[in-house]
Amino acid sequence: MRDLGEILEGFERGDERALARLITFVENLWEIDEIFRRIYPKVGKAYRVGITGPPGAGKSTLVDKLAVEILERGFRVSIIAVDPSSPFTGGAVLGDRLRMVKAMERGIFIRSMASRGSLGGLAETTGMVADVLDAFGYDMVLIETVGVGQSEVDVVKATDTVVVVLVPEAGDSVQALKAGLMETADVFVVNKADREGADRFVRELSAVVSLSPNEWKPPIIKTVALSGEGIKDLADAILKHRDFLGERLKEKRINRMVEQIENLLTKRFLNKVRQKYDIRKMFEGGNFKNPYEVLGILEREFLD
Amino acid sequence: MRDLGEILEGFERGDERALARLITFVENLWEIDEIFRRIYPKVGKAYRVGITGPPGAGKSTLVDKLAVEILERGFRVSIIAVDPSSPFTGGAVLGDRLRMVKAMERGIFIRSMASRGSLGGLAETTGMVADVLDAFGYDMVLIETVGVGQSEVDVVKATDTVVVVLVPEAGDSVQALKAGLMETADVFVVNKADREGADRFVRELSAVVSLSPNEWKPPIIKTVALSGEGIKDLADAILKHRDFLGERLKEKRINRMVEQIENLLTKRFLNKVRQKYDIRKMFEGGNFKNPYEVLGILEREFLD
Repeated sequence: MRDLGEILEGFERGDERALARLITFVENLWEIDEIFRRIYPKVGKAYRVGITGPPGAGKSTLVDKLAVEILERGFRVSIIAVDPSSPFTGGAVLGDRLRMVKAMERGIFIRSMASRGSLGGLAETTGMVADVLDAFGYDMVLIETVGVGQSEVDVVKATDTVVVVLVPEAGDSVQALKAGLMETADVFVVNKADREGADRFVRELSAVVSLSPNEWKPPIIKTVALSGEGIKDLADAILKHRDFLGERLKEKRINRMVEQIENLLTKRFLNKVRQKYDIRKMFEGGNFKNPYEVLGILEREFLD
Repeated sequence: MRDLGEILEGFERGDERALARLITFVENLWEIDEIFRRIYPKVGKAYRVGITGPPGAGKSTLVDKLAVEILERGFRVSIIAVDPSSPFTGGAVLGDRLRMVKAMERGIFIRSMASRGSLGGLAETTGMVADVLDAFGYDMVLIETVGVGQSEVDVVKATDTVVVVLVPEAGDSVQALKAGLMETADVFVVNKADREGADRFVRELSAVVSLSPNEWKPPIIKTVALSGEGIKDLADAILKHRDFLGERLKEKRINRMVEQIENLLTKRFLNKVRQKYDIRKMFEGGNFKNPYEVLGILEREFLD
């Protein structure tokens, strides 16, 4: 498989190696127009589940068990694992893939993506990789991210059901996390629910959830990912949210498509501007211009 | 002051009421080209300090005391306080302004901004409001946000020195917060440093900071905002970081300007596209098109 044509043929035959190659193309924004013009007619069947939460909440183990549970219910399931790759947290979290042993044993397709150095923006690229998995024929895609940074939260926002995983804990910073993630969550998981303080934590969380003005009140599922406790309840909750969405799902997908097209179009617009003008140079050196005059010049040239 | 001309005249005379009105214009993106073509020549003197951290860390009290300390060192200082306005956290945090009593007593200009419903994107709008304060003649602008959501972090990234305020605590979620905020921080504050566990927390944080590959190692300042302990050290640390930046400051400012112009230009480009095409309509109804064909159509029309 040396060229894109060959890869696309392999992809359409259901070859997983071709799938992996095609994802590499998409991650690097190579030939994406050609790729998606060809495969997009098959996009739209996969249900997308985002799983997020702080490091150490046990997400990888949870996703591992959840994927197997969903597989056993008759779905074709695959996993995208977004790894934070900060210079500080470094490769440490990359080891998480090692925790997805059950899914790997069952032959579930797992793709790791680094959250840094994503050319097209993390949320956009992850969305396009999910599209590729969708077109390949998966009907459930689980996307795991660490929900701390800004772009990681954007990733899960672009899914159909967002699962926020927390662990029983006290203190201000849990409040902080809750405030940030509260509006994002469709389902809460309190993992490590055998820990001390779990019931109190669930009660506090329930109190906050009950204030939600939305029709859908996020259920709170207690799990112990290591032992598998609560995984069936989690799968039930996700499928129940899918049923709740019903017709709204189509609306969500159209929103995603519109956003994707607008993002690509504006990125290409900006590239066109940058090819002709070095905006930085217009400020540097001696002729330090008023940026709003520069804006005026660019508007007359590109938007009239 | 009924029209913009009058407001601008008042602004140039140093009238604070006109300043407040002009900020309202900018927040609503009214006439911003006209406003900035006029006032931009005066922008570029104010040093911008972002203060962020989880709710409950005591940021408002800290900013209150810090502003007075900076004032007493001979700077003209003003404050932008960005209030998270989630339907869940609601107006609760808005009360924070009440904690800025010392600054108010000293006549320091304080502007509250809601983080929701910002038309132009929170970071962009806050940056433009800081530009207005800069042009008015302030030489130090303190911008306080709650550093949990994505956009709040973007806000402080657009400042010259970022102060991250934490409180001594244990547990996974502090790790999480640290991972997210670590690369953003130029100065760490451990507030409520009279609490149990403060020294251990500072040691842990030092260990993480020491791993930074950057030339500037963020100092860790222990404070008790309520009593004012450590506030002078914090002011020293901020000014030291300013000295460290030196010539790099000009570079930072040019980056901000380029970003601002590119943002405004792409937003206007998108408006132009949306005025002519309803992209959503192109997918809805019967003729559900391949979005990449739609992208091709839009590219030929707007980018050729």
